[in-house]
Amino acid sequence: MESEFLDWLRQRLPTTDRAPLGLQDDAAWLRLARPETVVTTDLLTDGVDFRLEHDDPRRIGRKALAVNLSDLAAMAVRPVAAVISLVLPRPGGLALARELYEGLLPLADEFDCPIVGGDTNAWDGPLAISVTALGQPTERGPVMRSGARPGDAIVVTGAFGGSRLSKQFDFVPRIREALWLHDQARLHAAIDVSDGLTRDLAHIATASGCGAVLDLAAVPIADDARRMALDYPGLTPLERALGDGEDFELALAVPNDEAERLIRSQPLATPLTRIGEFVAERGLWQRAADNSVQSLTPRGWEH
Amino acid sequence: MESEFLDWLRQRLPTTDRAPLGLQDDAAWLRLARPETVVTTDLLTDGVDFRLEHDDPRRIGRKALAVNLSDLAAMAVRPVAAVISLVLPRPGGLALARELYEGLLPLADEFDCPIVGGDTNAWDGPLAISVTALGQPTERGPVMRSGARPGDAIVVTGAFGGSRLSKQFDFVPRIREALWLHDQARLHAAIDVSDGLTRDLAHIATASGCGAVLDLAAVPIADDARRMALDYPGLTPLERALGDGEDFELALAVPNDEAERLIRSQPLATPLTRIGEFVAERGLWQRAADNSVQSLTPRGWEH
Repeated sequence: MESEFLDWLRQRLPTTDRAPLGLQDDAAWLRLARPETVVTTDLLTDGVDFRLEHDDPRRIGRKALAVNLSDLAAMAVRPVAAVISLVLPRPGGLALARELYEGLLPLADEFDCPIVGGDTNAWDGPLAISVTALGQPTERGPVMRSGARPGDAIVVTGAFGGSRLSKQFDFVPRIREALWLHDQARLHAAIDVSDGLTRDLAHIATASGCGAVLDLAAVPIADDARRMALDYPGLTPLERALGDGEDFELALAVPNDEAERLIRSQPLATPLTRIGEFVAERGLWQRAADNSVQSLTPRGWEH
Repeated sequence: MESEFLDWLRQRLPTTDRAPLGLQDDAAWLRLARPETVVTTDLLTDGVDFRLEHDDPRRIGRKALAVNLSDLAAMAVRPVAAVISLVLPRPGGLALARELYEGLLPLADEFDCPIVGGDTNAWDGPLAISVTALGQPTERGPVMRSGARPGDAIVVTGAFGGSRLSKQFDFVPRIREALWLHDQARLHAAIDVSDGLTRDLAHIATASGCGAVLDLAAVPIADDARRMALDYPGLTPLERALGDGEDFELALAVPNDEAERLIRSQPLATPLTRIGEFVAERGLWQRAADNSVQSLTPRGWEH
């Protein structure tokens, strides 16, 4: 099965000087511009990250690559190449593999991230997709989680909550935004919001040895968070924005003066919003309208 | 579960200047010596590549990394780092993850291939392990499948067949041998024998646009191939050597004079054997004792 699939795939892969060998050898050979590589891997499984009986395989395939590109965006790194391993349920594996690739290849093309290798297997278990993406930092190096400093503003792209309605599949990884911001501003720390806004902010704070205060009134709430709050009244739109996760927006630590400049000029197609600041006191905090500060429990996906 | 597991894992990972971030960020940052990277990925699944109810998880984990190192050996590339994605059956996933890592970490250490990232999930399906390994070519570049020329000798390391008895788990990836040979001889083409000796030689021949003639009497037969032939009399030891696969030895195309020098001097701890030559006439051929040549059907694992 695999050789027939590889023939099909080879016809669909653009040739690239960056990976001169194609899919023929035991490994792919990449010629990079600089001797620094960033590598990330994410595994998506049926029943956890998607439901094959319910979701279009093209959207599943696209998501498998997009979450990895989002991880590269979180470090403000330019994508270079990806490899993809599939475990396909029998029967129908080959047709499914094609649909997965039909979903992900346009995204690979859009972000200049050629698929340079992979492994394809069939078994009696459910579908699992493992993607490993490689990137190259710009001359400014990668942005890490650990660089936030007390006084930095918390700046986010886009809006939050309700991603289960569609954004968990259809989000655009914030590669372009991250590269532009890294070039034009000083980014002290960054993360992509996958686990939930509050939980991912707590990740930055913990890694940076500081705390974070959220202005809850400033958090941008996605329309889908409001829609879900109508249909599933257990959580308010704000609670969804704070904890739903899979928004795949950027949360950044930016020096306050730079943040003010960015918020004023709004240089990106995606809105930038200041939602709070990092502080010396460790932990996660919320600021109410009367300026009083209380502890805030991180919500979202706990690994 | 994942954060508890990551704490356990961090204590067991050596720190390395090559990957200064540890497991904290969205991706791992590698500082390499040269701007060339080779990347390979292999996915092992329960019921196909191992049987969890039968095989020790430590051996399974070791194999998952070893097959990737063997792919790097096939291109004569030095390992740099690996990332590992696990899908673990519930319940008992955490204990299983530890055992898998206990098996693979010593191998990562032996071949200076630090684990710099990964993804760990639990689900209701069976165990799957995806490993992506990165390597750097030496100044001579990587060795490819496509460089065999008519007149080149076919040289192999080690012996073949019967790997199911133990070698499929306990093989040592031929990294050291490949690097030494690439430095000291001209390797025109190389592959690691995973699918079966004849099938993998056919892969080199096809990629190189030539053929290969095998001297069947010269093929080194592993003791385990003879043992299996006693217990399972359907195949002779030679047939097992030609088609069993998972030997993870190297098959090389080497200019004839260099091959003679290597065979005479036997510079490695692993025996080197000349088992035939590449020829202009495409296809796979066998040479009998009376020097007559007949077509030979590749045996082994068909993807």
